[in-house]
Amino acid sequence: MNSNLPPLIEVRRCVGSALAEDLVPMGDVTGSLLDGDPMATALFRAREQGRLAGRLCADETFRQVDIELVASWSADDGAKLEVGQVFAEVRGSLGSILIAERTALNFLSHLSGIATAADEYVRLADGRCRILDTRKTTPGLRALEKAAVRAGGARNHRGSLSEMILVKDNHLAGLGIDLAVERARDRWPARSVEVECDRMDQVQQAVAAGADMVLLDNMSPSEAAETIVWIRSADPRCLIEISGGVNLDTVSDYATA
Amino acid sequence: MNSNLPPLIEVRRCVGSALAEDLVPMGDVTGSLLDGDPMATALFRAREQGRLAGRLCADETFRQVDIELVASWSADDGAKLEVGQVFAEVRGSLGSILIAERTALNFLSHLSGIATAADEYVRLADGRCRILDTRKTTPGLRALEKAAVRAGGARNHRGSLSEMILVKDNHLAGLGIDLAVERARDRWPARSVEVECDRMDQVQQAVAAGADMVLLDNMSPSEAAETIVWIRSADPRCLIEISGGVNLDTVSDYATA
Amino acid sequence: MNSNLPPLIEVRRCVGSALAEDLVPMGDVTGSLLDGDPMATALFRAREQGRLAGRLCADETFRQVDIELVASWSADDGAKLEVGQVFAEVRGSLGSILIAERTALNFLSHLSGIATAADEYVRLADGRCRILDTRKTTPGLRALEKAAVRAGGARNHRGSLSEMILVKDNHLAGLGIDLAVERARDRWPARSVEVECDRMDQVQQAVAAGADMVLLDNMSPSEAAETIVWIRSADPRCLIEISGGVNLDTVSDYATA
Amino acid sequence: MNSNLPPLIEVRRCVGSALAEDLVPMGDVTGSLLDGDPMATALFRAREQGRLAGRLCADETFRQVDIELVASWSADDGAKLEVGQVFAEVRGSLGSILIAERTALNFLSHLSGIATAADEYVRLADGRCRILDTRKTTPGLRALEKAAVRAGGARNHRGSLSEMILVKDNHLAGLGIDLAVERARDRWPARSVEVECDRMDQVQQAVAAGADMVLLDNMSPSEAAETIVWIRSADPRCLIEISGGVNLDTVSDYATA
Amino acid sequence: MNSNLPPLIEVRRCVGSALAEDLVPMGDVTGSLLDGDPMATALFRAREQGRLAGRLCADETFRQVDIELVASWSADDGAKLEVGQVFAEVRGSLGSILIAERTALNFLSHLSGIATAADEYVRLADGRCRILDTRKTTPGLRALEKAAVRAGGARNHRGSLSEMILVKDNHLAGLGIDLAVERARDRWPARSVEVECDRMDQVQQAVAAGADMVLLDNMSPSEAAETIVWIRSADPRCLIEISGGVNLDTVSDYATA
Amino acid sequence: MNSNLPPLIEVRRCVGSALAEDLVPMGDVTGSLLDGDPMATALFRAREQGRLAGRLCADETFRQVDIELVASWSADDGAKLEVGQVFAEVRGSLGSILIAERTALNFLSHLSGIATAADEYVRLADGRCRILDTRKTTPGLRALEKAAVRAGGARNHRGSLSEMILVKDNHLAGLGIDLAVERARDRWPARSVEVECDRMDQVQQAVAAGADMVLLDNMSPSEAAETIVWIRSADPRCLIEISGGVNLDTVSDYATA
Repeated sequence: MNSNLPPLIEVRRCVGSALAEDLVPMGDVTGSLLDGDPMATALFRAREQGRLAGRLCADETFRQVDIELVASWSADDGAKLEVGQVFAEVRGSLGSILIAERTALNFLSHLSGIATAADEYVRLADGRCRILDTRKTTPGLRALEKAAVRAGGARNHRGSLSEMILVKDNHLAGLGIDLAVERARDRWPARSVEVECDRMDQVQQAVAAGADMVLLDNMSPSEAAETIVWIRSADPRCLIEISGGVNLDTVSDYATA
Repeated sequence: MNSNLPPLIEVRRCVGSALAEDLVPMGDVTGSLLDGDPMATALFRAREQGRLAGRLCADETFRQVDIELVASWSADDGAKLEVGQVFAEVRGSLGSILIAERTALNFLSHLSGIATAADEYVRLADGRCRILDTRKTTPGLRALEKAAVRAGGARNHRGSLSEMILVKDNHLAGLGIDLAVERARDRWPARSVEVECDRMDQVQQAVAAGADMVLLDNMSPSEAAETIVWIRSADPRCLIEISGGVNLDTVSDYATA
Repeated sequence: MNSNLPPLIEVRRCVGSALAEDLVPMGDVTGSLLDGDPMATALFRAREQGRLAGRLCADETFRQVDIELVASWSADDGAKLEVGQVFAEVRGSLGSILIAERTALNFLSHLSGIATAADEYVRLADGRCRILDTRKTTPGLRALEKAAVRAGGARNHRGSLSEMILVKDNHLAGLGIDLAVERARDRWPARSVEVECDRMDQVQQAVAAGADMVLLDNMSPSEAAETIVWIRSADPRCLIEISGGVNLDTVSDYATA
Repeated sequence: MNSNLPPLIEVRRCVGSALAEDLVPMGDVTGSLLDGDPMATALFRAREQGRLAGRLCADETFRQVDIELVASWSADDGAKLEVGQVFAEVRGSLGSILIAERTALNFLSHLSGIATAADEYVRLADGRCRILDTRKTTPGLRALEKAAVRAGGARNHRGSLSEMILVKDNHLAGLGIDLAVERARDRWPARSVEVECDRMDQVQQAVAAGADMVLLDNMSPSEAAETIVWIRSADPRCLIEISGGVNLDTVSDYATA
Repeated sequence: MNSNLPPLIEVRRCVGSALAEDLVPMGDVTGSLLDGDPMATALFRAREQGRLAGRLCADETFRQVDIELVASWSADDGAKLEVGQVFAEVRGSLGSILIAERTALNFLSHLSGIATAADEYVRLADGRCRILDTRKTTPGLRALEKAAVRAGGARNHRGSLSEMILVKDNHLAGLGIDLAVERARDRWPARSVEVECDRMDQVQQAVAAGADMVLLDNMSPSEAAETIVWIRSADPRCLIEISGGVNLDTVSDYATA
Repeated sequence: MNSNLPPLIEVRRCVGSALAEDLVPMGDVTGSLLDGDPMATALFRAREQGRLAGRLCADETFRQVDIELVASWSADDGAKLEVGQVFAEVRGSLGSILIAERTALNFLSHLSGIATAADEYVRLADGRCRILDTRKTTPGLRALEKAAVRAGGARNHRGSLSEMILVKDNHLAGLGIDLAVERARDRWPARSVEVECDRMDQVQQAVAAGADMVLLDNMSPSEAAETIVWIRSADPRCLIEISGGVNLDTVSDYATA
């Protein structure tokens, strides 16, 4: 299995929750009006241009609904889709397809939306910087959304509070940047240390303290550009992240910075 | 407990998933740099104007993180918030607040965003029609999102495949509207029956068959207006739903219809 | 998959719980006395005449116990079984069959018992009315029991508090039937509205308010008959449900009403 | 906590499942018609004479629905209830009580029904023998049903396949009673060994092999009586269990045996 | 399925937890550096001499990670492994193998360690007594650890508090051995009764009361030997268990006793 | 809450599993022999010298068993305990204490054992290096075991495959160290990159490629010392980890290196 895909263990859990909320207790009452159990084929067609994500979720939805549904895909996570392009086909019991359809589509559209947005940022940045995501994810879907970001060509920032040190103002009261970085190095030697900075003097402290990464928060593109020049000269290894006020309109300006 | 709020059983499940994905296995590595276990107070402030939703989720997040966190709220789900308005305050261990903060905010911003959008549609409809939601919800969060729609003043359409009969084209192949409605009445006597219609002749069949509700799909506002006049005269009890192409730009035109 | 069957997601959850409570922590200590892992065939035979239900549960039990067990069925959910009739056969490891047997039988007998009772009521009603179930189900098994009711030829009333409006005395204190129905129409436009009535004046209010269904509670067959005549003349569309005091002895009298 | 009560861990799981199936996704749509969040008091009254069981489940239901509901009980599990007797009172939000009511009642009536039936068997046996239950329990509710049997004054046979050795015909093919008991003694030294016997020669073998308990299956009261006399003389320590054909009509005859 | 193996329902739960804690939310970030999705073969080799246990867990890990991984085993649970012996081979996607490897090994090494230790005790006891385990198991892994003990040739004592009566000092305050055994016989007729004894007078009481088993706690080998002689003469059926101070150094002395 | 403690969400899950496996379905059969529900006090006393860990698990066990049990602690996680020292006291229902006791002790002894071992390594390293753990944890208990390592004064290496880049031989086939590090920097910019090296030439490549950390695998103390000297001179920022062959006997030699 390609390691860029989300962990199957999360895919299964999320699909299980989604089916339960749509089917318990009576199943599909409308589907029960059908005669017998006719066979059918459903085509999945892109409504808008974009990047596909969520294929594992759709596959798992079909599997949990009816093990005999057969899906064939002409595109993988990360593929660019044109408007109207058929990217998947599902064959099997019509009753089962009607049960699975909305849940599979909910995953595909939610996650492809994320992949498509990530792709847009990446294209606007045009190789001048990398685009990273945040922990501002939909509760319970982080693993899937992080994978959708990767499918869109962007990068994942930390996946959880457990993964890396990110020192923010709230941590600094009474600690100071120096002590925070020193403790991080001592207590969590195997982890990157990033410091959030609003002002140049904080940036200077963070770089001096040996942070692996500084996060420039709420700076304008020009302030950011100036700060970046300084950091590059002070410690070429230090990574620089920009956050706050970055959207599709401003991302190109920040990327230039 | 006010019955408009989401079921607590779902609130607990969703908060549990969200905390697990943010904290397992090591907890908050940055928080561990703090000295001792200092006390703090955090204020929750609205970034944009809108309607609040998700209070139960935030409360449950605080509870699951640290039973001793104390939250006080100056606004309930459904309340209108002004930019910058402080709507909640949490007091307790700073370490606990830093653990709970992002998860609580993710719920509040996701759900308040839904409530706010629902409210906008409702204001544009201006009492001329009711705004209903769909089953196109984020997988696993349906109960919370449906409650957020209610907090925004809109109404819930069916909550699951299990709740009501909604006959679509895919069900009609080989059945026909008459037979579908007749069977629905026979097999599911306690449920509303809605028929999705693209064309006037389907509408006429559905009304003749005694559907409780017709869904006019992908009609323009003027087509819809004409159809509605016909239905109102044919069966004043029949509810009319419009779907497809409804967005913030068009909702007022459709509402007039 | 036939949409009358219970949702597989619930079948899996229920079977998982049942196996856990029967096997944790040591598995089948008696089965461990066997030599090697001999193969065997088990026949499932009806002890009493009735209707079969629970086949998906038995299949899922075999699957969760041992993926190599092979079940073949000569009857589907809803089929009439004669005393002594073999309706299923399972082949595979004897050890696995001994593990799965009681759990599979517990599902089959519990659910077939429900289907059989439903079928008896339906036969006694003899087409004069439909038989509906209630929310008085075994905790945790609602989806399975509702499907068993369908397998027995009866109908499902609401599946949960979430599905339809059913106004009872407890809701009416301070509200009144008119206001309750009006609010239900306004707040839940896509849902049927039923009103529970003990007396004729309540029935008249409910019908006047436009309820889709009235529930005649604890009326004698003759009172019910009289009330029904009145409703039929007042609003032929209004559905009538009778509850309280209906059992195998009285169901025919009520059906005549 | 009194150790005769069911494990709380199971109570919580069962109540959680029951509430989820009744409330997801929209909660109590009827309750949402109420004005504000009025307070109320509900009385729980026995409909029939019998023994109470399920109090922990009802308490847990109230707790999971609304932590502020306050229940007071005038009877414990195992108490005899008269028709019409009020055994519990719940105070708090009317909306919450309406949500919790049916689930709490479903537990109480299912489990009290079991306790009451157990009690009837015990009274008919009149001290001449003990009444034991089986593994024929409702899937997923075994811990609760076993506790209800105890509340009714009867005894629990094995709780799971994991607890004791019970050798049946299916185990004996190719093993023989001697070898089965010998292996059981060797491999599971800390467990009781019971052998199911249809005929006197099997009983003789089982007793000779040193079984702790023999299960007389499908014998008539007189056959059973004769067999029991023999066992009592051969090994006074050996316990005797009778199964098959025991019901409220025959239990007294068997008890005499 | 061989009934000595642990219940699959527990295997699935434990493997699911182990994979979730190792993979959520981002999966294997290092594996994502690989080009494409190359195929590979991994060999599992014994580092030390011992007994294998945990094969079902490893198989389930492969299955949950990637249904297309194919494992072939040359040894079953309970088999003796030599240093360096290859006992399993897994073929499939390299990315998948790298994801599954550590989790599968964690199960295999933990459980084979238990089987190996059990085997050592059994060899030192050399047929003079049986080796039993305790309830001092790793939380959440009891079913797997109990099966590993069996794979090592030792026996399982009770699996849970629910399985048998084991009267300890803490139970005896105010009860006395006689009354405890009498009540156990009355209330739990289908269960073995064991009494923990520190001194000869307790042993005498327990045997007189008819306990099935006495547990000699913290006696030296010679005290134990003396006590055993007495019990054998007083009641040859009574089983004797020795606990406290038994380790690899002393087990042979106790076995002689 | 102190952020060094394990996430409560995991504590609750692990305690729930542990209680279920010990209590389902019948609860504590021995405890049911007690008269009434007497009160008691239990003292928790250290059997060996060491460091305490697992307090949150014990507290959660008491809470899940009986909300009215009251625990008071005289030591926190990480505290040094002397032989015989009483570190906690629990008061409440004797029946509840007997139910909770073994589970609480299983957590405390397992986790304190880890904390104690970590502490020993730390003392032997004597400040010359830091002691880190691995992903070789008991399946399902990682969050708790990682916290126990911190309680013992050692450090946590990566918590999961998701947290940092650790390039091993298996990843290098066809990639090479240079490309692996370059890709890691590109695709996972916010993460530390470590490279496992068996030989000096690999170390040189890794340092040249800019790895944050090199893992010296299976080197003797003297080889390690030599390599460390080289790395210190080549890139003073690069962290050095030693693995393979480190145990209580050799840790001091390696620390000197």
